[in-house]
Amino acid sequence: MKTQATSQDVARLAGVSQSAVSRCFTAGASVSEAMRDKVQEAARKLGYQPNAHARSLITGRSRIIGLVLSHIENLFYPAVLEQLAQRLQQDGYHLLIFISDGHNADDLVGEILQYKVDGIVLGATTLSSALAQRCADASIPVVLFNRIMAAGSAGSVSSVRSDNLGGGREIARFLVAGGHRRIAYLAGREDSSTNLERERGFREGLAEAGQRIYARAIGNYDVLQARQATRDLFAQAEQRPDAVFVASDQMAIAVLDTLRHELGLAVPQQVSVVGFDNVPQAAWESYALTTFEQPVQPMVEATVELLQSYLRGGAMPNTRNIVIAGQLVLRGSCQNRHQESTT
Amino acid sequence: MKTQATSQDVARLAGVSQSAVSRCFTAGASVSEAMRDKVQEAARKLGYQPNAHARSLITGRSRIIGLVLSHIENLFYPAVLEQLAQRLQQDGYHLLIFISDGHNADDLVGEILQYKVDGIVLGATTLSSALAQRCADASIPVVLFNRIMAAGSAGSVSSVRSDNLGGGREIARFLVAGGHRRIAYLAGREDSSTNLERERGFREGLAEAGQRIYARAIGNYDVLQARQATRDLFAQAEQRPDAVFVASDQMAIAVLDTLRHELGLAVPQQVSVVGFDNVPQAAWESYALTTFEQPVQPMVEATVELLQSYLRGGAMPNTRNIVIAGQLVLRGSCQNRHQESTT
Repeated sequence: MKTQATSQDVARLAGVSQSAVSRCFTAGASVSEAMRDKVQEAARKLGYQPNAHARSLITGRSRIIGLVLSHIENLFYPAVLEQLAQRLQQDGYHLLIFISDGHNADDLVGEILQYKVDGIVLGATTLSSALAQRCADASIPVVLFNRIMAAGSAGSVSSVRSDNLGGGREIARFLVAGGHRRIAYLAGREDSSTNLERERGFREGLAEAGQRIYARAIGNYDVLQARQATRDLFAQAEQRPDAVFVASDQMAIAVLDTLRHELGLAVPQQVSVVGFDNVPQAAWESYALTTFEQPVQPMVEATVELLQSYLRGGAMPNTRNIVIAGQLVLRGSCQNRHQESTT
Repeated sequence: MKTQATSQDVARLAGVSQSAVSRCFTAGASVSEAMRDKVQEAARKLGYQPNAHARSLITGRSRIIGLVLSHIENLFYPAVLEQLAQRLQQDGYHLLIFISDGHNADDLVGEILQYKVDGIVLGATTLSSALAQRCADASIPVVLFNRIMAAGSAGSVSSVRSDNLGGGREIARFLVAGGHRRIAYLAGREDSSTNLERERGFREGLAEAGQRIYARAIGNYDVLQARQATRDLFAQAEQRPDAVFVASDQMAIAVLDTLRHELGLAVPQQVSVVGFDNVPQAAWESYALTTFEQPVQPMVEATVELLQSYLRGGAMPNTRNIVIAGQLVLRGSCQNRHQESTT
């Protein structure tokens, strides 16, 4: 391997000072165009690259944000990843990816800390209180994305999520207003804050109208389990549900296919289906899924602002739990049943 | 900001040598359990984190692989990203994400080089010859994923792709064998190697049977443009195509929805549709898209092996262009027309 050129070599060849070379490779530093041309020409000739790692030792900034994800193929996350990466890139930061199986979060965060990241976004899992404390001790800001710490956990970590509670409530009101009387719930992972909040809001919304969940099955945010849950919910032809709220769009799409292509039920004529997320595929005409939108762009913006408030100020932001309002997106998968109930 | 603890501080508190501390934080290094416990206890007390950046200056390894992507929401890439991240993570490497708009590749790679990455995977764009040379000069291996350098470009960069040529040919043979006589092609980006190869193979396969492309429109790998291209291809009720090969599944799904829900044509009864990629959504029952699979797992494995051959050996691998065999996946979007041609 050849010896790597240093900034001193570049300075010598360009006939300028070493600090001038440094300024030429520092974003925002003042330097004349002529100087920049001379230095870049010399750098090119010598194959010199300013070393971001060496710089991070001096400035204490790696310009790396660690992102922990699991199941990127979950339809909600590609847009999150792309928008978060793009937004951070505008500010000169880049995402370093860690894939979690949902159980190894603490190991992964330990590994992330070794990269001296400037911040961590957890989109896969939450943290143990002990590890949250370790991040705080190391002055690394952590943001939970689309989840919150388990109730009663000692550590405090900032979070950004959509209004799962309000969304669940609005879906219940919408289905009740549409004349549904046997409204089922297909749950996601029962230990997840998303499922807990959506279900709680849904129950509250039904209760306002004197209704309760008519039938319930668990899909665990998994497509195959959602298909089985659908079979279970609709096993009895008599008194089957006339509507089902599915805790994620990914599962709701599997529910639609199972109802139509396996069980031979017409959606929305026989069953109304509502999802949660508003993934791009919910708009595909073959599904036309009515769903509650988690607005990716404002959620990403809030996440970056939390990180930036630390990165700019150097002080840890107070723990904040930000809730972004969403909205019900009406498409073709639901039908008003008031007409038919009079026949 | 408090002063950060050094490995010397940890050694002093644990009552061991500094090299013992170093060994405790090096994967695979030999160290007794008692030693590890003592050192980790001291490290925890002092809030000490071994600095991966400082280590990279010593070993010359950052354990970071730069990945350039655009349009992660393109349905083919989430699985690529997840599997590549997971596979590299097993070996202690992580992906640093750069989002390209398709035009700024050279700027981005310059930025990536500042992070002193151990390798670069380009899944969005190809490189200028000049930049390929700069990477080679800096001894950074580069792998193009799902694309090759433009024909006639001077630089040489390794690549991994699926058998686009063979796939196009096999799709042509399949549609011809199915009795189709008016076979259309809906192109992706015309300057992309994927489109060039798929179309060339397709034309060759048709030519074997004395056929040629009956009608052609351009979708540019874009959903809205693919919808418009579908309207153009099927504008005339008389003599409309009886089959269409669409250069990507993402576009093919939009074609299916346009044919069925906008133009009122039955697939496969009136038109057969074939895609390319075999994205997860192609298997969804509402689409049941016949398509040519790009096998993600072997493509990822080949990419990692190319990188590893450098990372293990320290020598640059010779430029290699690896082609992974794919296969036609038959589903419900095509129909054999031999029966009907006799009526």
